[in-house]
Amino acid sequence: MQNFTFKNPTEILFGRGMIAELASRVPTNMPVLMLYGGGSIRRNGVFDQVQAALKRHRVIEFGGIEPNPLYETCLKAVEVARTSQAGFILAVGGGSVLDAAKFIAAAARFEGADPWDILRTHGQIIQAALPLGAVLTLPATGSESNGNAVISRKATQEKLALASILVFPIFSVLDPETTFSLPRKQVRNGVVDAFMHVMEQYLTYPSEAPLQDRFSEGILQTLIETGPVTLAEPKNYDARAAFTWSATMALNTLIGCGVPQDWSTHMIGHELTAFYGLDHAETLAIVLPGVWKHEFERKKTKLAQYGHRVWKVDSAEAAMAKTEDFFHALGMPTRLGDYRIDAGEAAEKVKARFAARKTLLGEHGDLGPEAVADILRSRA
Amino acid sequence: MQNFTFKNPTEILFGRGMIAELASRVPTNMPVLMLYGGGSIRRNGVFDQVQAALKRHRVIEFGGIEPNPLYETCLKAVEVARTSQAGFILAVGGGSVLDAAKFIAAAARFEGADPWDILRTHGQIIQAALPLGAVLTLPATGSESNGNAVISRKATQEKLALASILVFPIFSVLDPETTFSLPRKQVRNGVVDAFMHVMEQYLTYPSEAPLQDRFSEGILQTLIETGPVTLAEPKNYDARAAFTWSATMALNTLIGCGVPQDWSTHMIGHELTAFYGLDHAETLAIVLPGVWKHEFERKKTKLAQYGHRVWKVDSAEAAMAKTEDFFHALGMPTRLGDYRIDAGEAAEKVKARFAARKTLLGEHGDLGPEAVADILRSRA
Repeated sequence: MQNFTFKNPTEILFGRGMIAELASRVPTNMPVLMLYGGGSIRRNGVFDQVQAALKRHRVIEFGGIEPNPLYETCLKAVEVARTSQAGFILAVGGGSVLDAAKFIAAAARFEGADPWDILRTHGQIIQAALPLGAVLTLPATGSESNGNAVISRKATQEKLALASILVFPIFSVLDPETTFSLPRKQVRNGVVDAFMHVMEQYLTYPSEAPLQDRFSEGILQTLIETGPVTLAEPKNYDARAAFTWSATMALNTLIGCGVPQDWSTHMIGHELTAFYGLDHAETLAIVLPGVWKHEFERKKTKLAQYGHRVWKVDSAEAAMAKTEDFFHALGMPTRLGDYRIDAGEAAEKVKARFAARKTLLGEHGDLGPEAVADILRSRA
Repeated sequence: MQNFTFKNPTEILFGRGMIAELASRVPTNMPVLMLYGGGSIRRNGVFDQVQAALKRHRVIEFGGIEPNPLYETCLKAVEVARTSQAGFILAVGGGSVLDAAKFIAAAARFEGADPWDILRTHGQIIQAALPLGAVLTLPATGSESNGNAVISRKATQEKLALASILVFPIFSVLDPETTFSLPRKQVRNGVVDAFMHVMEQYLTYPSEAPLQDRFSEGILQTLIETGPVTLAEPKNYDARAAFTWSATMALNTLIGCGVPQDWSTHMIGHELTAFYGLDHAETLAIVLPGVWKHEFERKKTKLAQYGHRVWKVDSAEAAMAKTEDFFHALGMPTRLGDYRIDAGEAAEKVKARFAARKTLLGEHGDLGPEAVADILRSRA
């Protein structure tokens, strides 16, 4: 096991009716900036529940946070936070609203000249942030219980991540009932997203971390068992609750403690989203089988363990096949051709970008642009 | 799944050489009260490592915390904390030193007349506490990452527990190497203690919490795999690390989220310690099989799941047998007769005490004194 530090101070408030707990968790002695996205919270009852809980609070609303939150929009929210002297940020929505809230919380307290420096330094420059809390309405990203955020800058087409212990939510409310009305595609994406968060922290090479392996396998098994159920029965509380809790545990930094990690599927996937507009989860389902095939010799021991323990199959190859079958059963395509994207072209585009940035990926840090092109060509 | 709230703010610093991190984690602008037990830290190098890390700090030492920490001793430490104006407590030791540190931290800031009220109210009265950190030298209790403590009062023979979010350690250092010199018996006890912490939160009835089940089973499997190894090879770093991390995860309140819990084995065991002086873990290994047998009809579904997933056996009965075999393989007796204790007498003594207190145990809250007597008689 590798040395590690682990800290996750977020309080989770989980279950039916827990939005009412906002009344005691959100401070009353300062204005609260409430962030949300496109307005679905007005249709699914979440907005009303939040309003009811915060009836003794001074709340300033800021809607319109985009699915891939824009730096430009966030700066407008920072301006509102400052002019209203907001002392607390409440994010109501999915991972995008949460990510935006983290950047806004840091930018509102930033004393430098250019808030872009927060992202340019990946959050290292953050010295203070407004406290923030969340009501999560879309299980997927784990952003409700970590200090990570990804922000896109429209003007320069950049997409940068930040990480800081100072932007962990103070609390996050997770009420599975508030997610019953989510579109099927978002639930499908959420299951794949959570599944992949586990894979990036698990499917590398044996590293003498047996408990972390068991926890990762436990999340994978739970997603495999409850993913199809929660898609077929969106109002099945227990299935949705198990999926929701799995998505949080997949990226609250616990399972990654003391183990090697491989975020290459995410890194390659981000480029497919940038070039072709695919959903994040869609890109992951395409790329993962390619990464596994390309890195088979180095990953086959862990693949076999995964297959044996999670799928009860007896080979690394069978584990790979089971995984693609699982994605298909969720209605998730796994080939570029399924989206009529030319694999050769995609390979060249991503390769050129990674070559320009000298990007090296994978748990060994040696997957270069040519390897990435090979991976994408194999996903025609 | 039941509704739950979960919060665990403790930072874990895990691995070789991590005691050096104290230099940056312990505040330098106030005196630090360093608590420890019987002095083993002076023989195993931990004391020297702590001294080296805190060479720029003002440290007041207070040794002599007992294995079952005494209220009377803690009050002396509170006096030292107050007269020295300590602003931080550093616990260096096992669960006992940590438990004492939690009570001392709360008592040092307590403004009421009688600090016993802290324990009489089980910690509910706590409004403030000195910040505390820990260097854990004995994996077992999970106290390094929770807000619980048990304190004994010599004068009145009482033993009471407290729980408060205010006494979670700010940080805990876990360096498996510092535990290599532990006596075999303490390691054996630690494995059983951690195993039982999981069981009390897991072996009840099915409750639609599949991820919590998987995590519990993962800890049990890891303890089963690494327990015998770490006993046989005390300097095997990876085995000791896996055991250490398992013990923390067993009682940092995560696996108990949203599920029914049964602490009857612990409650009955505490009385056996009180009457006969058995080690805590020794009592648990005696009582558990009796609780399972007595509650077989209500626990058999979960017992079968446990057997199937953890032991790969096909019945609840086989799961029970495997568990006792596991304790025996660790060198842990499971019968009162193994200690020449008369089961009938023990049954009557514990029954009388629980009857006087009107104690009801178990996940259904209906195990009365007569049932407890039956359980103990079955462990002759």
